[in-house]
Amino acid sequence: MTYCVGMKLDAGLIFASDSRTNAGLDQISTFRKMMVYERPGDRFMVLLSAGNLSISQSVRELLQLTQLPGEDEPLTIWNAQSMFDAARLLGAAMRTVAERDSAALQQAGLDFNASMIFGGQIKGEAMRLFLVYAAGNFIEATRETCYFQIGESKYGKPVLDRLLTPETSLPEATKCALVSMDSAMKSNLSVGLPIDLAVYSAGALQSQEVVCIDERNPYYAMIRDAWDDRLREAFMGLTTPTLGEEPSVHPLNVPSQRHRPIKKITRPNERIC
Amino acid sequence: MTYCVGMKLDAGLIFASDSRTNAGLDQISTFRKMMVYERPGDRFMVLLSAGNLSISQSVRELLQLTQLPGEDEPLTIWNAQSMFDAARLLGAAMRTVAERDSAALQQAGLDFNASMIFGGQIKGEAMRLFLVYAAGNFIEATRETCYFQIGESKYGKPVLDRLLTPETSLPEATKCALVSMDSAMKSNLSVGLPIDLAVYSAGALQSQEVVCIDERNPYYAMIRDAWDDRLREAFMGLTTPTLGEEPSVHPLNVPSQRHRPIKKITRPNERIC
Repeated sequence: MTYCVGMKLDAGLIFASDSRTNAGLDQISTFRKMMVYERPGDRFMVLLSAGNLSISQSVRELLQLTQLPGEDEPLTIWNAQSMFDAARLLGAAMRTVAERDSAALQQAGLDFNASMIFGGQIKGEAMRLFLVYAAGNFIEATRETCYFQIGESKYGKPVLDRLLTPETSLPEATKCALVSMDSAMKSNLSVGLPIDLAVYSAGALQSQEVVCIDERNPYYAMIRDAWDDRLREAFMGLTTPTLGEEPSVHPLNVPSQRHRPIKKITRPNERIC
Repeated sequence: MTYCVGMKLDAGLIFASDSRTNAGLDQISTFRKMMVYERPGDRFMVLLSAGNLSISQSVRELLQLTQLPGEDEPLTIWNAQSMFDAARLLGAAMRTVAERDSAALQQAGLDFNASMIFGGQIKGEAMRLFLVYAAGNFIEATRETCYFQIGESKYGKPVLDRLLTPETSLPEATKCALVSMDSAMKSNLSVGLPIDLAVYSAGALQSQEVVCIDERNPYYAMIRDAWDDRLREAFMGLTTPTLGEEPSVHPLNVPSQRHRPIKKITRPNERIC
């Protein structure tokens, strides 16, 4: 499996990806899922990939070779004037691989399974962040939905839903991405270290930080331990319910206004509906 | 969708289920997913169901009618001497429905999709908790894995993984079940109130608490708000990383021992592998 997250904030972009792939539980390997395309002062783009590794590697290989008809010269990711055109190129690369491979995959009982997060900034344009599907179509992040996830997304989603807004600062959002990664790794064996992390500051047109985080990274080690402790403290800090008939400030056994408690079945073949 | 959790603790058993079903997003209904079978002083059993509602309703209907050959008289859930035998009866009911429905479901392009949590205590035996699969086979909770989930389990799993042990008290575990429910509801629209909650104290042979919790329940309302606040505080309490080259107590950009940072691609058709 894989877990990747991309965030588009007012302050910049953040990309994080794990690096575990698996075909079953006994065939686990380390593959990096992040590509950084950067021409300082002109463009900065990051591609994160999930799904069938043979598909995503082919798409990555093809992306730089893919051309769309342009007005003067064909569009490539290196001369595209907008991230939208760059995302179209990625979609086109995805479709090329689909044409080549999907029938054979289907014969082998496999779906054409791949998804990609693609974001960045090209000079003259604002930052943009896209989620590209296996069919080559794509959607763009907005202020209301300022992050995308691919792969094993569920465990790492609650912390993003609760804490991330477009106003979140880059350091806070970096912390949020790493806590989200930690949650995914804690509950799913198929998401694993090292984490690749890229941080981009709005308008910089080059990366601020591209780091590889493994089990010995002091900041990540601190996050992993401290988040566990602090979740436990947060939980212990919640008022515990009083069971039975004891009086309570926040009673648990207040009758629902609209629903009765489940009626117990107390003898054979009793019906309660 | 559905989310149900059952816990087996030293102190007793806890069962919680949501009550939303959906067939697509525009056909959402409220159906309760908990059944309580209780003959005080003799036996207490709870059944939680997830999956295709037509299957789980049929299984619930059949469960009390299902008999297995016994030594003196046929076994039913009302005279079974062990929870293991009661779980076998539930498996048999599941198989009866499968024989009746699975071919027609398959023709309609549907899986025979159902799973159940079944637990309780019969006089003379310890408490037991089972997870029953669609094929009618089942597994039992142990001290190492003291809870089962069915339905939309992922969002509510991290809090259980981090906090629940067999030594957890019934009130603390009740809180844990409700926080787990809240996480599932926060991230998945298809899990919804009211929550049915049953608490059983070891050896009591009757329920301690069977309540229906809706949006006006004072304890649940407190949990929902307070958990959000406390998660936010826990997150804010984690040290924020310093980006770039600034010195830090927990540096983020320490080189990995085994992996290089992702190499940036800086010109057309550059290869980095």
